[in-house]
Amino acid sequence: MSQISSPGVTRMQKTSIATVCLAGTLEEKMRAAAEAGFHGIEVFEPDLVASPLSPEQVRDLAEELGLTLDLYQPFRDLEGVPEEQFQQNLGRLEAKFQLMRRLGVDVILLCSNVGTATSWEDPVAVEQLRRAADLAAGYDIRIAYEALAWGRFVNTYEHAWSLVEQADRPNLGLCLDSFHILSRRGDVTGFRDIPGEKIFFVQMADAPIMLMDVLSWSRHHRNFPGEGGFDLVTFMRELYATGYTGPVSLEVFSDIYRQTESVRTAREAMRSLQWLDDAQAGDVPAHPTGWDFAEVRAAEPADLAEVLVQLGFEDRGRHRTKDVHLFATGNARVVTNDRVEAPLEHAGGSVIASVGLQVPDPRSTADHARALHYPKAWRANRADEMVLRGVQAPDGTEVFLAPTSSAAPQWVEEYGRNDAGRTAGSAASGDAGAGSRPADVVPGGVEGDGLILGIDHVNLAQPWQWFEEGVLFYRSLFGLAAQVSNDVASPQGLVRSEVMRTPDGAVRIPLNLIPHGLDPGRSAEARPLSGHVDRDELRLKAAYPQHVAFLATDAVEVARRARGRGLRMLPVPSNYYEDLAARFDLDGDFLAELQRNDVMYDRDEGGEFLHFYTRTVGTVFFEVVERRGGYEGYGAGSAPVRLAAQYDLDRQ
Amino acid sequence: MSQISSPGVTRMQKTSIATVCLAGTLEEKMRAAAEAGFHGIEVFEPDLVASPLSPEQVRDLAEELGLTLDLYQPFRDLEGVPEEQFQQNLGRLEAKFQLMRRLGVDVILLCSNVGTATSWEDPVAVEQLRRAADLAAGYDIRIAYEALAWGRFVNTYEHAWSLVEQADRPNLGLCLDSFHILSRRGDVTGFRDIPGEKIFFVQMADAPIMLMDVLSWSRHHRNFPGEGGFDLVTFMRELYATGYTGPVSLEVFSDIYRQTESVRTAREAMRSLQWLDDAQAGDVPAHPTGWDFAEVRAAEPADLAEVLVQLGFEDRGRHRTKDVHLFATGNARVVTNDRVEAPLEHAGGSVIASVGLQVPDPRSTADHARALHYPKAWRANRADEMVLRGVQAPDGTEVFLAPTSSAAPQWVEEYGRNDAGRTAGSAASGDAGAGSRPADVVPGGVEGDGLILGIDHVNLAQPWQWFEEGVLFYRSLFGLAAQVSNDVASPQGLVRSEVMRTPDGAVRIPLNLIPHGLDPGRSAEARPLSGHVDRDELRLKAAYPQHVAFLATDAVEVARRARGRGLRMLPVPSNYYEDLAARFDLDGDFLAELQRNDVMYDRDEGGEFLHFYTRTVGTVFFEVVERRGGYEGYGAGSAPVRLAAQYDLDRQ
Repeated sequence: MSQISSPGVTRMQKTSIATVCLAGTLEEKMRAAAEAGFHGIEVFEPDLVASPLSPEQVRDLAEELGLTLDLYQPFRDLEGVPEEQFQQNLGRLEAKFQLMRRLGVDVILLCSNVGTATSWEDPVAVEQLRRAADLAAGYDIRIAYEALAWGRFVNTYEHAWSLVEQADRPNLGLCLDSFHILSRRGDVTGFRDIPGEKIFFVQMADAPIMLMDVLSWSRHHRNFPGEGGFDLVTFMRELYATGYTGPVSLEVFSDIYRQTESVRTAREAMRSLQWLDDAQAGDVPAHPTGWDFAEVRAAEPADLAEVLVQLGFEDRGRHRTKDVHLFATGNARVVTNDRVEAPLEHAGGSVIASVGLQVPDPRSTADHARALHYPKAWRANRADEMVLRGVQAPDGTEVFLAPTSSAAPQWVEEYGRNDAGRTAGSAASGDAGAGSRPADVVPGGVEGDGLILGIDHVNLAQPWQWFEEGVLFYRSLFGLAAQVSNDVASPQGLVRSEVMRTPDGAVRIPLNLIPHGLDPGRSAEARPLSGHVDRDELRLKAAYPQHVAFLATDAVEVARRARGRGLRMLPVPSNYYEDLAARFDLDGDFLAELQRNDVMYDRDEGGEFLHFYTRTVGTVFFEVVERRGGYEGYGAGSAPVRLAAQYDLDRQ
Repeated sequence: MSQISSPGVTRMQKTSIATVCLAGTLEEKMRAAAEAGFHGIEVFEPDLVASPLSPEQVRDLAEELGLTLDLYQPFRDLEGVPEEQFQQNLGRLEAKFQLMRRLGVDVILLCSNVGTATSWEDPVAVEQLRRAADLAAGYDIRIAYEALAWGRFVNTYEHAWSLVEQADRPNLGLCLDSFHILSRRGDVTGFRDIPGEKIFFVQMADAPIMLMDVLSWSRHHRNFPGEGGFDLVTFMRELYATGYTGPVSLEVFSDIYRQTESVRTAREAMRSLQWLDDAQAGDVPAHPTGWDFAEVRAAEPADLAEVLVQLGFEDRGRHRTKDVHLFATGNARVVTNDRVEAPLEHAGGSVIASVGLQVPDPRSTADHARALHYPKAWRANRADEMVLRGVQAPDGTEVFLAPTSSAAPQWVEEYGRNDAGRTAGSAASGDAGAGSRPADVVPGGVEGDGLILGIDHVNLAQPWQWFEEGVLFYRSLFGLAAQVSNDVASPQGLVRSEVMRTPDGAVRIPLNLIPHGLDPGRSAEARPLSGHVDRDELRLKAAYPQHVAFLATDAVEVARRARGRGLRMLPVPSNYYEDLAARFDLDGDFLAELQRNDVMYDRDEGGEFLHFYTRTVGTVFFEVVERRGGYEGYGAGSAPVRLAAQYDLDRQ
């Protein structure tokens, strides 16, 4: 699939997708798969049964769309039963063979018995598999036998292989399914014992690591490779080591993808295979090296400016041609809008419209994004301005790609200091001048008070239908890995949070899954399914709380000075500090200093964490964090307190 | 709680609810609990920590609201640890005792150690519990020790009791939690070994029976008593047998209730305790004996009339004072609107606005509904018209209560045949006359062709936030029990379906949980949280597919005649019949007859099921079912086919 291919590295030859992965009718599923560039599909029987298309029409449609029909599935509960029942099962099976001939499919998926096998002897099953294969041979059909993770007697691929090997028929082989194997923590190095030509089919699915009965986990929570927590790279490498050259197909049962638009899902599915193919070939993206900027747009930009200046940011003025403003301190750069946009005003909110990431080679990352069919982010630029390549994340956030640099980025020069045309925040700007101490020069940054070093993390809210895509986006394009996943209680529901980050922590992006009850975009009209940010999408994003966190050398000092400049912090209840005192053995003066400045505290094995939040402007707020020692978290214990305080303020 | 109390029957003395059950701030939770009539609350520590109210303010607020503060919870990971760590834990514990004194709470919940106990000896834990109790005694505080289902060493109440008994302190007792006990299938008859005065607290929660790791199950899927599948009645009876007279409290961690409006949730919580109290006392509601009618309102009432007449219903004319029409055959009665209502037109849909259930004593059921605080359903009536008492189900459907009767209900006489003012459906009405054979007289019913006997079931779609409440509504008021729960695949997501029914099957109500992606009312504005049906709510309901199923003696014959009258059936794909042939050994002529008439088929151990669906009018459609032998299902295998066909038609 990828253009880059080294000698000795196997690449994916043929891609396929089970129709059950996609929403809609069978015809819609097929069109979506074709549009996304899949070579073939697996025909999921219930989709065919519910379709008004005859088998012949399905065959013709596939041909018209350039799709191969790679597998008919599933056939259940055939083997390991008494002879009389087996005879009936063979009748059922033969009816499917006849159907498959009309469809033009020549491989059937046979799942290990989960229901009707009540006693079990391997030799009986072997003999029955052999007879089924002999029947199939008359129809030129091959049987791919798959061990379901919850199979009654056969639930490992090793056991399935032993039966297939003993049955010894050329048209009887295996189907290997990553979910069934990895959900039981199966050992994929055992693939080496299987000749590649006896693997008839391969089904890939990822899944979040959950404690759950494997059947429910499988039926509801699978996702596409790269979206979950399975080691699919090793799976693929071991698979290729057998000499397997057949289709690599996706079989994902997902409550989410069952209800999202099928063309978008199919594109995501294809991307997941591209990521997998690259990853198994060792072709991994270079990590971003840091944050270039964050862009916040607000219905009330003057409010944004005020908060930033109170935090110690310098007002670097207006862009020479655009209605945007730059605020900077150290290596932290925030771009804000000067004009109010109608959709934002309507939503009454604000939005983290874009972020800039520094990458070793922006062109190569942009090319990679194009190869993965992520939509381009586009901004009008004048010829003499620096053009950053950009890409749209699944939630609509634009991610711009800047070159790695320890100096201030070139585009900063496009902003003029003390622009007279600006009124918003100018009073605060004066304050900042008064409040700032002799500037410490931060390497690569702008002048400032030296307390804020740069951006620590950017917290992006994800509507439920885009969360999984967000994970793959940051993983496939930037090599970020999921750090932690937890549920945070808010007064309006649980928020699932997963942090995508670089190994060195230079870039950290917590993705927050918004509870259904809070989802403001849940009417069918408002739910944008396109890959492009439009006005509705901007409105949608603007309704969620999001924030930018800055890394400081001394969070308490930043808080103290900011309060001196009039900043309203998010108030922290005194109960929080009493609880802190009961949990940690803290010095009384230190605790009092935290409380006076609404600074929160956490500690773990690695170190300490001090942080505070500003008031919210629309729906965006800022955080200032200080990491002492090796603390790698985000103050998880304080998130519910923060959410409750924000909710409380919202209601006032 | 209940007015009715027999000698020898224990009744609930004191109700309480943990603040974690409810959404919002601590203050909102407290106000909601008070408004719903709870005697007291459990203070969930994270709610207090996140609250701007000081402990003293919480105490004052509780007093003002007439609430007692019954429990402070949870305290974790105290016992079974090395001495040095225990000393620290005692410090942590004492800080909470001081806090509790400021709050005025004198019982603390101590959970069995899940994290820090790495080796375990009962005597060590006993000694540490004893020392904790002695410390508590100095603050006049009692400790309620609870075995968490996932406790590292202590995970049964029997084990917890053995430690408490050995520690032998008057202020050390147990907390019994129904979830922790029943999720592990604990034996509640063992309560008898515990003196009632050593049970310091009781927490009740129900839960759907799920295969899931117990921690996730507990944290996300608990619900209120009567909404789930646990045997809480036996739990309560065994509890009372110990002599326990303390608070019965609710502790429900629910992803749903965490995000729904707290006042509504608190009312539902109170209802769940009323149901539980009645049920344990053997005070169970009389089952409905059958269906009186179903009322469908449509944006295009003429379409409704046409379909009903084509099915063999007789147009019984217009109501003498209201703009509604009656269609009847056998004991099946459907009331439709004559005028189009604006909200329906706006939604472009139709709605099952109400159903009539025959009950042995409507007044007593209505009184019961009032005692449970279900809102009344209200229709304007003239003095000479029969007034049916009515109640609103959580989804807004109005349920009217008619007396059990084998004769046609009296209200039928309020409709005049061949009303000249009616135009809608009059053409079809003529058809019906022509098509009908000499009428068989159905006992208690109206004339008809004798093929349709009555209503079999009414399928009501439930928005996700009301599903659990719907289960309790039909259980608490009508004694219906949950029959089956399964997931049905639709082209737009999985639909969870649970059937509430009487033991004899006279009334069956499948509740279908609509997938989030299909939820049309998910914008905050559109989500009605009141208990009363308003225009918005009607719109919301009108956007979901719902249906009324009629029981017939011969479904194929009904289909044949209806087709003769021009009925458009929901088309069933021929693939369905081919699959049927592979699955069941059916006679070829029979199969052809089914297919010719778009009649679907199922079979189980009990018997056979034949059924067909009509085209959809707005969002409502009709089904005709025939049950042969003891078939008790609903043709589960055909639901995905039906949903796909409806989706397909919608798109055309």
